[in-house]
Amino acid sequence: MNTLETIDQRRAVKHYDPAHRMTEAEITSLLEHAILSPTSYNIQNWRFVVAQDPEIRKQLREAAWDQAQVTDASIAIILCANLNSHLNPERYWKNAPEEVGKMMAPMTTGFYEGNEQLQRDEAMRSCGIAAQTIMLAAKDMGYDSCPMIGFDPEKFARIINLPNDHVIAMMITVGKSAQPARGRGGQLPLSEVVVSEKF
Amino acid sequence: MNTLETIDQRRAVKHYDPAHRMTEAEITSLLEHAILSPTSYNIQNWRFVVAQDPEIRKQLREAAWDQAQVTDASIAIILCANLNSHLNPERYWKNAPEEVGKMMAPMTTGFYEGNEQLQRDEAMRSCGIAAQTIMLAAKDMGYDSCPMIGFDPEKFARIINLPNDHVIAMMITVGKSAQPARGRGGQLPLSEVVVSEKF
Repeated sequence: MNTLETIDQRRAVKHYDPAHRMTEAEITSLLEHAILSPTSYNIQNWRFVVAQDPEIRKQLREAAWDQAQVTDASIAIILCANLNSHLNPERYWKNAPEEVGKMMAPMTTGFYEGNEQLQRDEAMRSCGIAAQTIMLAAKDMGYDSCPMIGFDPEKFARIINLPNDHVIAMMITVGKSAQPARGRGGQLPLSEVVVSEKF
Repeated sequence: MNTLETIDQRRAVKHYDPAHRMTEAEITSLLEHAILSPTSYNIQNWRFVVAQDPEIRKQLREAAWDQAQVTDASIAIILCANLNSHLNPERYWKNAPEEVGKMMAPMTTGFYEGNEQLQRDEAMRSCGIAAQTIMLAAKDMGYDSCPMIGFDPEKFARIINLPNDHVIAMMITVGKSAQPARGRGGQLPLSEVVVSEKF
């Protein structure tokens, strides 16, 4: 599907066919596209927790205000980030000329080190970018998705054994739509969200 | 272009044809697609500052470590967010049945009110999602882009008259590529960033 059409047709779908299962090849393809998303300094700070197991998803649903899509979609992907991804950055340049890695590595660590707000901002920013990659890729593959932040992040952290230096940014369910999304609720006009040159 | 191909071919491009100008129709189309990006509670908290003016872009470039793409690309879009977008949320449901707006509005305000970290997280998350929409839409329209956080946010805030209750999340340059991007620097394997069920 044409990219502009995909952007137009992607909607948050909450009702899924619970009998439908994505194949492992489809799930892998979705994630292979997700990791083509850009990250600042190429730190690839996202971590994608793929929940398929019915028992784990039951626990996640309970911690997500009992929203049905958590168990009914084919998969739920919890987008987390490693807040320490700015450490050991040489690995992000292993295919680049040696001088690139030598220049980028100390810049990367220096940019983030000791700045906890920036590390957290980067977690949310990177996961946001990757989230839209996943939602658009899913749509192109014939699936629908639902981005979610309506859950208890502390309960989620316990369920998925989240390491202390990681943070959860959001969750996305992906599956076969059983019912179309409602119409768009009320888009602000471009004139309210676009600013020419300065406020 | 097929969406999966677009995701694969999008790269951060730093060298642009400075003579090329996007038309106003192209810029509007790009932004019309950007605002189809999902936001939590439909709060549409992003604000897109479109910089075309050469004098303003010169100032932005100076505050962005003199990176050439800031002035050489056709446009630079500074993605900001209104941290108070959770106030007066009825407007986000004007096309929905009345009971939807009545239910969602108090939930929205209550969810964010008094939680400054959550408001900031939402700024970064929403702008991240919209950023990827812009970068993929641009690619589909025959353009390239570069996501950037390498600039002085306080200087940027002064240049664009950023309101006190807004925050800058990132910048994206969009234009006609003059030189292809370098190869991907060093992608982490799926096994390092994908977790099955739990850490």
